Amino acid sequence: MGIVVQKFGGTSVADAVKIRKAAQRAIDAAKKGNNVVVVASARGKQTDHLIADAMELNSNPPRREMDQLLSTGEQQTVSLMAIAMHGMGQKAVSMTGGQIGMRTDSVFSKARIQSIDAKKIHAEFDKGNIVIVAGFQGIDENGNTTTLGRGGSDTSAVALAAALKADVCEIYTDVDGIYTADPRVYKKAIKMKQISYDEILELASLGAGVMHGRSIEFGKKYDVTIHVRSSLVDIEGTLITHEVPQMEGILVSGATSQKNLAKIGLIGVENTPGTAAKIFAHLAGAKVSVNDIIQTEVSKEKANLSFTVGNSDLLDAKTAIEELKSSIKYDKIFIREDIAEISVVGVGMRSHYGVANKMFDALAKAKVNIDSITTSEIRISCIVDEDQAETALIAVCDAFELDKPAEKRSK
Amino acid sequence: MGIVVQKFGGTSVADAVKIRKAAQRAIDAAKKGNNVVVVASARGKQTDHLIADAMELNSNPPRREMDQLLSTGEQQTVSLMAIAMHGMGQKAVSMTGGQIGMRTDSVFSKARIQSIDAKKIHAEFDKGNIVIVAGFQGIDENGNTTTLGRGGSDTSAVALAAALKADVCEIYTDVDGIYTADPRVYKKAIKMKQISYDEILELASLGAGVMHGRSIEFGKKYDVTIHVRSSLVDIEGTLITHEVPQMEGILVSGATSQKNLAKIGLIGVENTPGTAAKIFAHLAGAKVSVNDIIQTEVSKEKANLSFTVGNSDLLDAKTAIEELKSSIKYDKIFIREDIAEISVVGVGMRSHYGVANKMFDALAKAKVNIDSITTSEIRISCIVDEDQAETALIAVCDAFELDKPAEKRSK
Repeated sequence: MGIVVQKFGGTSVADAVKIRKAAQRAIDAAKKGNNVVVVASARGKQTDHLIADAMELNSNPPRREMDQLLSTGEQQTVSLMAIAMHGMGQKAVSMTGGQIGMRTDSVFSKARIQSIDAKKIHAEFDKGNIVIVAGFQGIDENGNTTTLGRGGSDTSAVALAAALKADVCEIYTDVDGIYTADPRVYKKAIKMKQISYDEILELASLGAGVMHGRSIEFGKKYDVTIHVRSSLVDIEGTLITHEVPQMEGILVSGATSQKNLAKIGLIGVENTPGTAAKIFAHLAGAKVSVNDIIQTEVSKEKANLSFTVGNSDLLDAKTAIEELKSSIKYDKIFIREDIAEISVVGVGMRSHYGVANKMFDALAKAKVNIDSITTSEIRISCIVDEDQAETALIAVCDAFELDKPAEKRSK
Repeated sequence: MGIVVQKFGGTSVADAVKIRKAAQRAIDAAKKGNNVVVVASARGKQTDHLIADAMELNSNPPRREMDQLLSTGEQQTVSLMAIAMHGMGQKAVSMTGGQIGMRTDSVFSKARIQSIDAKKIHAEFDKGNIVIVAGFQGIDENGNTTTLGRGGSDTSAVALAAALKADVCEIYTDVDGIYTADPRVYKKAIKMKQISYDEILELASLGAGVMHGRSIEFGKKYDVTIHVRSSLVDIEGTLITHEVPQMEGILVSGATSQKNLAKIGLIGVENTPGTAAKIFAHLAGAKVSVNDIIQTEVSKEKANLSFTVGNSDLLDAKTAIEELKSSIKYDKIFIREDIAEISVVGVGMRSHYGVANKMFDALAKAKVNIDSITTSEIRISCIVDEDQAETALIAVCDAFELDKPAEKRSK
């Protein structure tokens, strides 16, 4: 008798047909002898509608009240799913974040989970119930409703799986797993059977967007096996697990391209201690999210410093840099808006040489110019012209044979 | 510094404009130096939409889950109203039934309030907040969400007013008060300044429908002054209070007509002890709500027994009576579907003679035939032909001068 947590996103519960389909998944798992927890998001565009309702009344709504408002979306889904299950002959009970004891801090709109009362769920298991928990929400120590921010329902599901020591946390979504690259660009991309938390974290931050980074960090911390799979067809998806030895044999697990990036370069920045710190502290203060930073010394006194940001942050970043004009000396500022970042990710890089060379070689053969390069322990990223992003990704995928299962690639 | 409870029904908070208008009412009361509690219902047709969503999944949804679902409607309204108030510069906090400590029993869909934690509200008053409470809902001892059934938001408001010993419980609605008769039928009807709990209870049960009887009973029990007034215009409405001496000087406070009634008569019922009890116990078992009962002895052995029910209960009532055929002996059954009940209500009846005569006389002059008559201490009701209902009501209203303020009527 195992414990299975199943999470269904908004598109998987958007209407009555989909709610029944999701309910059937949970019933199937229960019939196999499992105790089942379902975590559900708000139906379809419900959250967007509620946000619009609030904005009509106040363009700067207080966060506590927004959390109180938005949490109703998930509450509706879980009670409707319980109603559906009863109609299908399955005992089930819906639970809000508060009812399940999903205790968080009081940072409204992006609260962090502090503890979960697993006893309450076990008590419902003992009554033969499937427990349907409203995702994305919790309750603080004063009884206020909180929400967990972006990707919150994934976090709820993984946290519940951790608290219950569940066998698996299944994330049902509209794709059937995680692919070696975006199949819309690299048509030969194939689904991965398994990937490590660290790899998916690099892929997620690079825009692969299957799951929010925070829920994966949670899964990594508590060693929760996450199964990303399709809510439409009943086939195996991709397992996200801790690193296993065979992963090291794989040079590159996946590749991504991220567009809508801009690069800001400061030429001839005064090369004194604390300069970079001052710049990035100021950017952080302006709520600019900086991706990659590259600094090179050009002389004893001067350096070139560049960093990439999302296009939507470019204006704020420019303003912030201009505000520093009096306190930071530099010769010239330049901005490039037409760039993309191509990355390859794989824990195998730790033990294999030549990955970077292979990537640069593939890009050169495809006549893609590399603007700049950054690396982490398990990632290599190249900034390229935006209009070469597709060409670059395809070239890199072909080079690392991302159209073949890992075991069939040449070593 | 007083305490004011204001209740806004679904039509008074149906859209952003109306929510702001309701918020302004509360802010105005706060600016006068009052501590203010707002009780709000679900917006417009939200509850109906949620019921339809549930029925699509299960035509017999479990009540616990329906309560969990429907309570979201009120939760949305209160957070939206708090958001509106913040935008209008007013400190405010929304509260669900659970957050406010509105403790009920566990009879889902028609729970009864057991206690309210007034301390929580006072703590919010101390912070300068208007407290906006989700009506219609509570929480049971196990943390399950409950709802209070029909007229539940009125009950929430009156119960809160009682718990806080509020100066007044204002019920905002789309009419501007309680009239001496339905102005759609009796065009000269005027608004009453004041009416007693007992009178409004008789009027409510007779179909005047301004407030649900349960909330008025609550008000009577805890002596809460209820002010029924318009959400559209800022004029005095009608006060519902305990009986005051000057009410005794008023012969009749109001008159009503109730249509959609049916009468079932049993002719020649065996006149033995326990017969009526057996009949009405069986009707109650069939969930038939019986209005008036009239029994007359026609001989030592036999009686005629008749009772009225709403048209919607007629079929169930007929079936129930037929089921009794073997155990209850009677000569004949007859059914009239085309009847209406005309009633006059007034605590003054207790100390004045001739009210009944005056009513019968008015009906006779208007050539309205009286089928049967029932009375209570403060009410006289006549069953008449349904197509004479309007004529009858107008005649009775004219006779008791219900077009004039009480103090200007002839004694």
